[in-house]
Amino acid sequence: MNFKLVKKDNDTKARAGLIHTGHGDIETPIFMPVGTAGSVKAIHQRDILEDINAQIILGNTYHLYLRPGTDIIRDAGGIHRFIGWTKPILTDSGGYQVYSLTSNRKINEQGVEFQSHIDGSKHLFTPENVIDTQRIIGADIVMVLDECTPFPCEYDYAKKSLAITHKWLDRCFKQFKNTDNIYNYPQAIFPIVQGSVYKDLRVQSAEYIGNFQAEGNAIGGLSVGEPIEKMYEITDLVCNILPEEKPRYLMGVGTPANILESIALGIDMMDCVIPTRNARNGMLFTQNGIINIRNEKWKNDFSPVDEGGTSFVDMAYSKAYLRHLFISKEILAAMIATAHNLAFYLWLVKEARKKIIDGSFYLWKKKMALQLVQRL
Amino acid sequence: MNFKLVKKDNDTKARAGLIHTGHGDIETPIFMPVGTAGSVKAIHQRDILEDINAQIILGNTYHLYLRPGTDIIRDAGGIHRFIGWTKPILTDSGGYQVYSLTSNRKINEQGVEFQSHIDGSKHLFTPENVIDTQRIIGADIVMVLDECTPFPCEYDYAKKSLAITHKWLDRCFKQFKNTDNIYNYPQAIFPIVQGSVYKDLRVQSAEYIGNFQAEGNAIGGLSVGEPIEKMYEITDLVCNILPEEKPRYLMGVGTPANILESIALGIDMMDCVIPTRNARNGMLFTQNGIINIRNEKWKNDFSPVDEGGTSFVDMAYSKAYLRHLFISKEILAAMIATAHNLAFYLWLVKEARKKIIDGSFYLWKKKMALQLVQRL
Repeated sequence: MNFKLVKKDNDTKARAGLIHTGHGDIETPIFMPVGTAGSVKAIHQRDILEDINAQIILGNTYHLYLRPGTDIIRDAGGIHRFIGWTKPILTDSGGYQVYSLTSNRKINEQGVEFQSHIDGSKHLFTPENVIDTQRIIGADIVMVLDECTPFPCEYDYAKKSLAITHKWLDRCFKQFKNTDNIYNYPQAIFPIVQGSVYKDLRVQSAEYIGNFQAEGNAIGGLSVGEPIEKMYEITDLVCNILPEEKPRYLMGVGTPANILESIALGIDMMDCVIPTRNARNGMLFTQNGIINIRNEKWKNDFSPVDEGGTSFVDMAYSKAYLRHLFISKEILAAMIATAHNLAFYLWLVKEARKKIIDGSFYLWKKKMALQLVQRL
Repeated sequence: MNFKLVKKDNDTKARAGLIHTGHGDIETPIFMPVGTAGSVKAIHQRDILEDINAQIILGNTYHLYLRPGTDIIRDAGGIHRFIGWTKPILTDSGGYQVYSLTSNRKINEQGVEFQSHIDGSKHLFTPENVIDTQRIIGADIVMVLDECTPFPCEYDYAKKSLAITHKWLDRCFKQFKNTDNIYNYPQAIFPIVQGSVYKDLRVQSAEYIGNFQAEGNAIGGLSVGEPIEKMYEITDLVCNILPEEKPRYLMGVGTPANILESIALGIDMMDCVIPTRNARNGMLFTQNGIINIRNEKWKNDFSPVDEGGTSFVDMAYSKAYLRHLFISKEILAAMIATAHNLAFYLWLVKEARKKIIDGSFYLWKKKMALQLVQRL
C-alpha cells in the first residue's frame, strides 16, 4: 500500500490524496460504507460498485470471526472472494464491537474475554489472534486491537486503558511482521490513537503512534457521545501530530456535516453506520438537508426522492412512494434509502476532493455546512 | 387489449400467445410477480424489468386501497407512475385478500364488509366500488369481485357462493361499462370462474363466464389446499370450456412444476407469491431442483448460487455466502433469493414458450417435471 498526497488545501488542513492497494486505488478523502457481516445492509455489491461508486468498504472482524467464521472465509479464498467484492476492504479489529455488543467482558493485559452477542459462547481476543484472524479474512487494511473508551471516561481509566492499548499495539505490529499475507496481495496495518477527550493522553498517543511509521494511522474513541466541538478539537490536535505523508482515518464518523469538518482538519478516511442505519429508519441526507421520509408532509409529494442525487433510485422513485414503502414496512424502503444515502455520502467526499484540488474547498464547505443540517 | 394465438402445441393443450396492452406486449405463457402493496418485495423495479425480464406485475386492490389509498394513487397519476413501473400491471379485486387476511367478515348480496388487517377499521367492498377503485388504481387488467371459496368447502356453500359470485360479476361488468378509464390507456376486465372442486359448478361457471366475451378469463379458487390432481382436473375441465381465443389466467399458481402442468392444460397467465415468499425463507428453485440454502450442506459450497441461472445474482454470489447472509439475517439474503427465484420463474415460462413454438414442449416438460421437484 502507498499514499500519495495530490493536493493540500490553502485555507484548511484538508488534503486530496491517492491510496494504492492490491485491489485498486482509493481517492481520498473517502467515505467507507460499513459491511459489518460481509454485506453493506440492503444493497447489492454490484450497486455499491456501479451505482454508489464506493471505492472501499468495511468489514468487522468481530462479526466475521463469529459468523461465518475463519474456516469458511479461508476456504473461500478470503473475504473479497467470499462476498464477491473486487475493490479494497478494511477490517476493524473487533475491539469496538467487543465493547459495544458483548456481555461479561474481562479485559486484562493478555487480551479481552467476552461472550458472543449471538449465542453467549465465550471467546478471547488477543493482539496476536486478532491479527491472525485478519490475515485469514484478508482485508487490504487491517486494524490493531485497542480499547475504545466510552464517554464520559475518568481520566485515570483513560490513562490505564491507553497504556494497555499501546502495549497491544506493540504486540499487534510484532505479530503482523512475523506473519505473511495468505492471499496474493499485500495487507497494511493501521495503529489507532486513543486517549478519550484528554489532550495530554491524545498527544502522547499520537506521538507514540506516529513513531510506528505505519502505512496509515487511525483515530479511535471519538464520536462516542462527547460534545461535537470536543471531537473536532481532539481530531485537530491529533492530525497535527500524525505524519502528514500517511493517510489519517477517523473511525466511526459521522454525519455529512461531520464528514466535511473532519476533512477540513486533515482526515482522509472515514466510516460510519449513519447513512445505512438511518436509511433503514427513513432518514435521508441530501445536499439541501435532512428528510424524515416517514413524515406526513411527504405523502403527496410526487417529486423524485432527490433531484440532485446520483443514485439511480433518486429519479426512479418519488418521495410519496418511498414514504408509502416505509409505512407499509416494505423491504424496498430500506433498499432505496440505503442506496440514496450511500450515493450521497460518496458524492459528498468526491465533491470535497474536487473542491480541494480546485482550491474552493473552504467556501464550499462553509455553504454546505449550513445546508446539510437543515430539516426539510 | 387484444390477444393473438401464436402457436398451439400438438401434444398438449399448451399455447403460445401475445397480449397487447397500453403498456406494451406480454408474451404468453407468462408468470406475473406479485407486488402486493405496490412493490415486489425485496427487488427494485429496475431489476424486475432488466434483470428478471418480467413483462407484467400484479398489485392487490385490497392492500393499495388501504395503503396508500386511492387519493394518493390518483394524485400520482395512477399506479404505474406511483410505483415507477412502465410495463403492464394487473390488479386483483381484493376478494381473495378479504377472505384470507381480514376478520369479522360479513358477506351478503350487497358485498362484503370487513375489518382492515392493519388497523381494524371497517370497510365495505361491493362489485361497484371495487371497479371504481381499480379505475383509480389504473391497472391494465382489472379483476371482478368474487368469493374465493376455501378448501374443503361444502357443496351447498360452494353453490350459494357461486350464485353470488355470478351476480357480482354482472354488476362488475355493468359498472365497468358505465365508467371510463381515468388515465390515457385502456383497461380490460377479467371475470373469474369459481365453483370449488365441484365439476358441475365449475362447468356452469365456465359457461356463464365464457358467454361474457371478456378480453380474458380467470380461474380462481384453486391452489387453496385441494389435492394437486384435483387442481389439474378442474383446470383442464375449465380450460376446455373457456374461449380459446382469449387468454386464460390461473390465479395463485404455483410451484415451477405446477406452472408447467398448468401451461400444458391451456393456461396463459399465472401469478403466485411462492417465488418471492419462499425466497425470503431461503428456498431457491432451479432447473435441477429445490435448494434450502439454510442447510448446513451449503456452508462450504463456493459454487455460484445457480450456474444455470439468468439473474446477475446467480454468478455474483456463492451458495456459501448466500447461506451466511440468511443465517446472519441480512436483508441482502432476501434480495438475492428473490432475484434468483423470479428470474428462474420468468426463464421457465419463456423456455416453455420457445418449446411450444418449436414443437418440443411435451418432452421437455416431461423431463423438467422430474428435475424441478428434486431436493438438492
